[in-house]
Amino acid sequence: MTNKNDASYIRTTLFLCDAFEIVSCEWPKHAHSAVHQHGWSQCHVLVQEGTFENINYFGFKTETTIHEPGQVISTPVSASHEIKCISEKGKTLHVYVPPMSDKLTKTQLRTPSPVDLKKQLSLHLSTEAVGWSQLTQQLDQIQAASISTHSPYFMNQLFSGVSSETLLADQVLAQTKSTMATYEASPVFTLVEQEVVKSLGELAGWPVDQVDGVTVPGGSSANFMALHCARQRKFPNYKEQGLPAGTRVQVFVSEEAHYSLKKACVVLGFGTSSLISVKADTQGRMSAQDLKEKITACLEQKAVPLMICATAGTTVRGAFDPIDELAEICKAHGIWLHVDGAWGGPVIFSQTHKKLVQGIEKADSLTFDAHKLLGANLTCSFFVTNDPQILLAANDVSGADYLFHDNSEVIDRGRLSWQCGRQAEVMSFWTIWKSSGAANLGAFVDRLMTVKDETAAWIKTQSRLKLVSQPDFLNICVQVLPPAGSAAEEKTWATHVRNELKRKNLTMVNYSTTTDGLAFLRLILAHPQVSSNTVKEILTWATEVI
Amino acid sequence: MTNKNDASYIRTTLFLCDAFEIVSCEWPKHAHSAVHQHGWSQCHVLVQEGTFENINYFGFKTETTIHEPGQVISTPVSASHEIKCISEKGKTLHVYVPPMSDKLTKTQLRTPSPVDLKKQLSLHLSTEAVGWSQLTQQLDQIQAASISTHSPYFMNQLFSGVSSETLLADQVLAQTKSTMATYEASPVFTLVEQEVVKSLGELAGWPVDQVDGVTVPGGSSANFMALHCARQRKFPNYKEQGLPAGTRVQVFVSEEAHYSLKKACVVLGFGTSSLISVKADTQGRMSAQDLKEKITACLEQKAVPLMICATAGTTVRGAFDPIDELAEICKAHGIWLHVDGAWGGPVIFSQTHKKLVQGIEKADSLTFDAHKLLGANLTCSFFVTNDPQILLAANDVSGADYLFHDNSEVIDRGRLSWQCGRQAEVMSFWTIWKSSGAANLGAFVDRLMTVKDETAAWIKTQSRLKLVSQPDFLNICVQVLPPAGSAAEEKTWATHVRNELKRKNLTMVNYSTTTDGLAFLRLILAHPQVSSNTVKEILTWATEVI
Repeated sequence: MTNKNDASYIRTTLFLCDAFEIVSCEWPKHAHSAVHQHGWSQCHVLVQEGTFENINYFGFKTETTIHEPGQVISTPVSASHEIKCISEKGKTLHVYVPPMSDKLTKTQLRTPSPVDLKKQLSLHLSTEAVGWSQLTQQLDQIQAASISTHSPYFMNQLFSGVSSETLLADQVLAQTKSTMATYEASPVFTLVEQEVVKSLGELAGWPVDQVDGVTVPGGSSANFMALHCARQRKFPNYKEQGLPAGTRVQVFVSEEAHYSLKKACVVLGFGTSSLISVKADTQGRMSAQDLKEKITACLEQKAVPLMICATAGTTVRGAFDPIDELAEICKAHGIWLHVDGAWGGPVIFSQTHKKLVQGIEKADSLTFDAHKLLGANLTCSFFVTNDPQILLAANDVSGADYLFHDNSEVIDRGRLSWQCGRQAEVMSFWTIWKSSGAANLGAFVDRLMTVKDETAAWIKTQSRLKLVSQPDFLNICVQVLPPAGSAAEEKTWATHVRNELKRKNLTMVNYSTTTDGLAFLRLILAHPQVSSNTVKEILTWATEVI
Repeated sequence: MTNKNDASYIRTTLFLCDAFEIVSCEWPKHAHSAVHQHGWSQCHVLVQEGTFENINYFGFKTETTIHEPGQVISTPVSASHEIKCISEKGKTLHVYVPPMSDKLTKTQLRTPSPVDLKKQLSLHLSTEAVGWSQLTQQLDQIQAASISTHSPYFMNQLFSGVSSETLLADQVLAQTKSTMATYEASPVFTLVEQEVVKSLGELAGWPVDQVDGVTVPGGSSANFMALHCARQRKFPNYKEQGLPAGTRVQVFVSEEAHYSLKKACVVLGFGTSSLISVKADTQGRMSAQDLKEKITACLEQKAVPLMICATAGTTVRGAFDPIDELAEICKAHGIWLHVDGAWGGPVIFSQTHKKLVQGIEKADSLTFDAHKLLGANLTCSFFVTNDPQILLAANDVSGADYLFHDNSEVIDRGRLSWQCGRQAEVMSFWTIWKSSGAANLGAFVDRLMTVKDETAAWIKTQSRLKLVSQPDFLNICVQVLPPAGSAAEEKTWATHVRNELKRKNLTMVNYSTTTDGLAFLRLILAHPQVSSNTVKEILTWATEVI
């Protein structure tokens, strides 16, 4: 099969089968490919004659390289690239594994029903083995039936997109199967975890020699750990006997905070009544005034104000609580200040937008999810603190001498964790950071903030769209009004729109309701390829729903 | 490059570069390859002429397939295989990505020092980006410097080996980046999680419609969840107010139980004094008699006996507590019975050895780690219970209406969990089970139990080796005596031996000490390729240490 394509190079398929495709290309001078990607297929191009320029487009950076004969242009899975012949002529040999096809890159933004899925997929487990070829087909079907979170039109969660770095790091993790409990079993990854938490703490403005932290299984777990450490510091003898008899504690969060704080109060044994919900202002930021009143009430009731959790980027509206003000209150009363930066934490990479977390250097601890805005694999979450003794004090228990042998050089990180065996999830973020550099991560935040501003300005020009509030961050919360003359109820129209957009397989965005019961769409800007045009396109579809 | 190898087929390399190798082979009748594997390289063989038989050796099964022209023989990464030409002659085209090399398959069983690693590897994070080619080199170095848990000589942890199924499942997970919190975002994996926990519960002997469970981030977390559920059932109003004032609870575990139970008592707010350590017999099994006495004491102190945790396969000696007897005690006093089967749980797949957990059908819950004996990726742990309401009762909190929308068909699994966003770790085990079938998993347990028996019998013939106790399970705990006439101290000799075997890069086995302070080696049988010869080889090296 030989054909001549638009870019005027000649492409000859040498071999094509299910597992791979081998192609030979002849290139005249300045012939070039379009920008393209290969789905989940690996692409390796051996330069046989001539000189080529290749541009790889990663999520957070672009990389241009020059290749001479004998060298290979490798485009990582999920990156896009373009190739140009910069010599008089050229010849290349391409290997694709598996062959390029749209099989695995079709977008699925609809949720199939359980009944359909059970019919369509062979999920049942039995005593019988299944052949490898059948197994891989079943996994292809499973992948195809799963929601396409790699698509820029997936805006439902606080993450979107699958980066090349993540895929690479994951392969290393799967092949090493390393457990983070001890240094001796996981020497490199132990040092990587130290490097990442120190670097995050430094960006938060903490003295680097005071910083400690640990990877935890998700942002919720990081918030659990914050409360656990706050308890340990307030009640140093707590570990053996539990809280002193009759002690009641209170934990203060914004009414718009994540539900994991409530869950933390349940798990840690305080009960949900210990969680005090503080009013938020019209922008969704915690009211320092209301907080003060609630702390006064707490002290009057002889309860112990244990922790204030400031949210940096609330789940629904993306609001940032006023950390600077909250820090003063914490200082006055000896209260642990935790910043839940699961979503908004990455602003610490941006010189321009770091001001959203002004005062973070006065906090005691931070939740940071690299799997959200910064695209690491699920989960890649960190609890970081500037109290270098607290994690060990709160978590180390005796009784594991078989595991934690004396090691004076480096602490075994299982001692700091609720987990024993655990994967080095930290590698996913380390690889992204190493590949991109902190400057590009900050530039990414800045770019999306510009998209947010452009989008918000455009929404104001649209008669049937209405911002719930001016967004601080990358959550576009927008009401959609029914078509003029429609008898449909305004209150629930956005929910209908959302379901229709999903049903048409156009986009998966989430929705919520205001305290007045008005439904609105929540579009999350997180995908590296998202632009204001993407959002305008989606919201235009939204107004076309009938 | 053309050469004729032992197996009398002619191999011609068509292309060889850093990224791939393309080889053509000509096969006379009955020519065959040796059994071989390709390290971390993918191997795809296109049959061009003739008919071929291929045998793939997976961890838990062997698969023979016949291939005609146009078909592809794919050997999954980390499987080994052999190919035979069964026609008059044959021709094949082989693609290896990357080329076969020992680069990534060298065995590293030594732990480098932090100082050396920091010199050798570029772990530091900065503002600057690093080129893709440099990044992949750095990751290769990181992988090479990490402990080779894929080696059969890695016996240090309660897992060993990296299976093809795990690598495949991990790729699907990385590409789908699916979060398990809701059905709508994770439809397939939600059903897979249900299927796996139901199937495990069924093997435990529970009525399948009563079984519920959830994937948790490790065996420790499963034990935490057990205690949390026990608390919920005993104190149904606990979630809001915490425990009734003045309530003291006690949790009973064998003195040889895993330290995570102690940690659970800290995290859940009881304190370590709530953990009551029950004596173990000479085999390391919990004494039912001592347990009864301790429960009597508990009741006399007006404390609440909340949970008994029976260990199925203790960490050091692999002992199984007498579940049947403990179940009676639990029933008599209304105590939650949890079985920590993180290590020994897989005996439920074996018709022969299931008797080790006799009585498990009377337990309330089970910890099951598929990432240990059954080779799933870290972590792939399950908390399974036969109380179908308890997980929701213990874990669901309000305040996440933006996330958990009404869905009458299937429950959103985030409601059952301490995590919100989490990866579908369950896929790793599902893929292994689907590929192998439960019968092969049981046969694997049986085979290793035979290796254990052979090894234990052999050790008894060796004058310088002494079993700490007759092993119930796959933990070979063995003292090593110093060479005759040596002035070395007997007590610590095993520690010295262990360090020397590591230093020589021969094997990584763990060690512990008896209550009398005698050090011993702990060899874990878990790798699919381990045989009694492997163990004899290692223990012979152990006696050669000076």
